[in-house]
Amino acid sequence: MGEFELIHRYFQGPALEAAGDVEAITLGIGDDAALLQPDPDKQCVVSTDSLVLGTHFPEHYLPADLGYRALAVAVSDLAAMGARPLGFTLALTLPQVDEDWLAGFAQGLAQAAEDHRICLVGGDTTRGPLNIGVTVIGQVAARKVVRRKGAQPGDLVCVGGPLGDGGAGLAVALGETLSEQLSDAGRDYLAKRFWRPRAQCDLGLELAGIASAGIDVSDGLLADAGHLARASGVALHVRYADLPCSPALQAWPEAQRREWMLGGGDDYVLLFTLPVASISCLDVWASQGFQVRVVGEVVAGQGVWLDDGQQLVNMDSLAGYQHFKDTTDD
Amino acid sequence: MGEFELIHRYFQGPALEAAGDVEAITLGIGDDAALLQPDPDKQCVVSTDSLVLGTHFPEHYLPADLGYRALAVAVSDLAAMGARPLGFTLALTLPQVDEDWLAGFAQGLAQAAEDHRICLVGGDTTRGPLNIGVTVIGQVAARKVVRRKGAQPGDLVCVGGPLGDGGAGLAVALGETLSEQLSDAGRDYLAKRFWRPRAQCDLGLELAGIASAGIDVSDGLLADAGHLARASGVALHVRYADLPCSPALQAWPEAQRREWMLGGGDDYVLLFTLPVASISCLDVWASQGFQVRVVGEVVAGQGVWLDDGQQLVNMDSLAGYQHFKDTTDD
Repeated sequence: MGEFELIHRYFQGPALEAAGDVEAITLGIGDDAALLQPDPDKQCVVSTDSLVLGTHFPEHYLPADLGYRALAVAVSDLAAMGARPLGFTLALTLPQVDEDWLAGFAQGLAQAAEDHRICLVGGDTTRGPLNIGVTVIGQVAARKVVRRKGAQPGDLVCVGGPLGDGGAGLAVALGETLSEQLSDAGRDYLAKRFWRPRAQCDLGLELAGIASAGIDVSDGLLADAGHLARASGVALHVRYADLPCSPALQAWPEAQRREWMLGGGDDYVLLFTLPVASISCLDVWASQGFQVRVVGEVVAGQGVWLDDGQQLVNMDSLAGYQHFKDTTDD
Repeated sequence: MGEFELIHRYFQGPALEAAGDVEAITLGIGDDAALLQPDPDKQCVVSTDSLVLGTHFPEHYLPADLGYRALAVAVSDLAAMGARPLGFTLALTLPQVDEDWLAGFAQGLAQAAEDHRICLVGGDTTRGPLNIGVTVIGQVAARKVVRRKGAQPGDLVCVGGPLGDGGAGLAVALGETLSEQLSDAGRDYLAKRFWRPRAQCDLGLELAGIASAGIDVSDGLLADAGHLARASGVALHVRYADLPCSPALQAWPEAQRREWMLGGGDDYVLLFTLPVASISCLDVWASQGFQVRVVGEVVAGQGVWLDDGQQLVNMDSLAGYQHFKDTTDD
């Protein structure tokens, strides 16, 4: 099977090419490039992510899970900007043609495409060590885009869902020794939260034009809060007791839970700041089923501060995951 | 050095971020995604390419050459569509932080960005076996886009520059035993044609709205002509004697030259079809310095046929380079 046959067999067809708004895709797979038509008042939003074996996912995995995760984590960046997904490209580097692997990967990818309403529009398939590059394209009105910059003292700090599931889910995915308290259902829930994170696009669309700043939690709550605080030139105060935590996470002792909730990463929930004038949105979002929780306030100053009920502690030293960070002496 | 410091040190700054039309980049590197504003009457054109060591480039290389080539070959897909480059993202997977490598790579990348007037708008840097993913975004008016589909019987078949240099350039880059006829200047020219191909964006912009179909020659002339013929539902007749050939290529015997010109690939010149009604464009383009040559005609039928002066031979068996093609029995 050559490259063109491989693309045709696994990646062409309505499951991937018509998973989203096909009206916006003027030209999809099969030419030198794809053509996308944003709405007249919208701009194009673009983000790229790559997944590498061992770094971004464990050695033991289901190809379908990997396909899902590769797309969902990339789409999460669109959600963070308040953008609507349109299309994505896939740069797939594979050591060999393994038809079972490809069928599974394509199936998971198609499920993620359907769940996030985004169409595969192009890509590149090459031979080499496994590497999955996904570039997502969305649209947003420039005046409504949610950036990391823009948080103002007095704004509320909010999160869009439970924290720590990504870190715990990775432990489950790695097959690490787990708490005996963890039920089978809890284990399934956490594995799914790691392998099949659902990017919060619907919430992101609600935040567009309303949130003063936003980011998705991928490096860890404190690290991503730090990115937002730095970009906005403010300090964030976060109340530990108010951070939402899933029932499954209760199976672990407090210290482990805290580590994952604050620094685990891979949660792919939105972290955003909300002007007090828009506080009524919280009730609207709750009525729509969004699990938004107010977890702190924006204040003048800099850095991320954790209120643990006793004192306010500066948390800037907890930097979150960075590639290459372990290669130098700093 | 962590990931953020690496990005800041090598990939942020005007050399890469302001190499093109900065007006179109509403938001560049540093947020969850970039924001691009195409002109009101234009659509977004998107294409992805990845480069893998050993598959796309030889083991021995200069990082600056690799940086140039990675971007230029991706931009060539925009040229083929008649699109103007706007921005690109870089998904860079590296085995380790090598500051000399990074400085060289970024310098070559910046040179390619300047030559093609395109801005770096985002990306992702991760640890793993070397893999370079580039996604380019351009713009074109939907009614003017040049597709593989659209060639009509009677149209002229044209190429935008010399053929075979990519194949010969790869031989030079690989340090293969070369013809004694090849001068130092010829060797430098061919190495540059392989490592620093210049995507024909300016020609592509001229072709927008005029060429009936087009593609860039990356897999080899006959293979890419085959893609165009299939997409258009026509046959292409190509006259071998009319194919343009650089002086450097004359250093090789006819058989080798012919192999590279017809099947070598990596030329990154445009192959397009021109309605006879637009034949006067040829003089205009020549006066502008474009080296467009008429090399054949579109006829009813299918496949690619080579007129070698004696007879017309069907060339569909010469399929061009495909990844994974050697892994099966077909």
